[in-house]
Amino acid sequence: VARTLPGERIIYFGDTARLPYGNKSRKTVTRLAVEALRFLEHFRIKAFVVACNSASALAMPVLAAEASVPVLGVVEAGARQAAAATRTKRVAVIGTRATVASRCYEQALAALAPGIEVASAACPLFVPLVEEGWTDHPVTARVAGEYLQPLRDFAPDTLILGCTHYPLLKGVIQTVMGDGVTLIDSGEAMALELQTRLADLECLAETGGGDHRYFVSDQAERFHDEARRFLGDAAPGSVSAVDQSDLPWFDRGAAFQEEQD
Amino acid sequence: VARTLPGERIIYFGDTARLPYGNKSRKTVTRLAVEALRFLEHFRIKAFVVACNSASALAMPVLAAEASVPVLGVVEAGARQAAAATRTKRVAVIGTRATVASRCYEQALAALAPGIEVASAACPLFVPLVEEGWTDHPVTARVAGEYLQPLRDFAPDTLILGCTHYPLLKGVIQTVMGDGVTLIDSGEAMALELQTRLADLECLAETGGGDHRYFVSDQAERFHDEARRFLGDAAPGSVSAVDQSDLPWFDRGAAFQEEQD
Repeated sequence: VARTLPGERIIYFGDTARLPYGNKSRKTVTRLAVEALRFLEHFRIKAFVVACNSASALAMPVLAAEASVPVLGVVEAGARQAAAATRTKRVAVIGTRATVASRCYEQALAALAPGIEVASAACPLFVPLVEEGWTDHPVTARVAGEYLQPLRDFAPDTLILGCTHYPLLKGVIQTVMGDGVTLIDSGEAMALELQTRLADLECLAETGGGDHRYFVSDQAERFHDEARRFLGDAAPGSVSAVDQSDLPWFDRGAAFQEEQD
Repeated sequence: VARTLPGERIIYFGDTARLPYGNKSRKTVTRLAVEALRFLEHFRIKAFVVACNSASALAMPVLAAEASVPVLGVVEAGARQAAAATRTKRVAVIGTRATVASRCYEQALAALAPGIEVASAACPLFVPLVEEGWTDHPVTARVAGEYLQPLRDFAPDTLILGCTHYPLLKGVIQTVMGDGVTLIDSGEAMALELQTRLADLECLAETGGGDHRYFVSDQAERFHDEARRFLGDAAPGSVSAVDQSDLPWFDRGAAFQEEQD
């Protein structure tokens, strides 16, 4: 988003005290996502991006109903890009257990372009493998071979990387699936979708961007180091920790915003 | 504990909405563990067992200060059994990143038996591999080979399985380490320690046990299914979900206890 919309300012919240969301129930993921929305709404935001696939898969209806601004989910963005990319109308999806079980991509693709066939596979070890830094490790190749075998048999021409961590495994996944398969990075898809949406709403900023703010609920320092692996030079200069020890913790956003003003 | 102390009744809380603890900070793990203590204290407990190694490693001083009953940590129990088992005075420890970084086993062993040399290794992929059910999978053997290589070089005669999930990988770990190495299951060690402690306090129950109660903060049904893999026939008959959506959520323990009375 920072690269695609250089005129915008991003306020980011990462719920590191309560992640991962991918193994949790719809009820719990929805509650946690609404709390994140409440926190970020203190910053006079003009749009709310759900950058986590599991939260997009499970919490979108409630978030859209509760939010005071437009809500964009990464699932819808990825599905739209996949629908545009596929020639053979065979799309594969990989994600966490929660994302795959929700069948959100199947529903989004059916709504966008009836007639697309979809196969999906949960890949629960991919996130821990990326967090271990084993993006190029033979174990990861082996795990990918096993998880993706049913999808190879399905023979799609497009595969949606339905989790924030999976783009770091693009190399391994492309090798297993073959060069003929287009990989859809739902983060990139989201950035384009956000650009279009803000332009439609006539509130896309051309200048004055940057000075992004990053908040996490635990381990700000470790987040800062790990962000380098995901973002390279675009990694945040500083990351603030938000205390969640009492409710409503998310109203701490107000104090952070005032400090800014 | 249920097997070793058949006269006792167990009240169990699993924080499935906020797990895993093994990658979180001391501050956050301590807060979550104290909330669990507050919840369980509503049940007129006579001892509080910290069955999670990461929580034992990071939260014990605060838990011991805050609790109204004796607090037993799984780290102390495992260290005591390892100190008794080692002949060569070379003990290896495996655990989560948080447990290993805390150096809690090194400190506990130094306090129990000066002169024991300790080597440790974090094995962050072991928990996700167990949760994926790959306890016998070639990938797991390969990961174990890589994680445990430095410990093989250290040549211990005793290895502490410093995480609740690792006993399910006993077979793989024993194969990598060799038959000459004694594996310490800190859960078993804890059961024996609890027996001794309750006997010392003259409150060990000989009869009237069972009718255990299980609470989790998310996905009660999935917990119930997974418990079968850990506990076999001793798996819980029923599991209750505890809502954490407002504070103090842990005072819900009072209502559950009254319902019982």
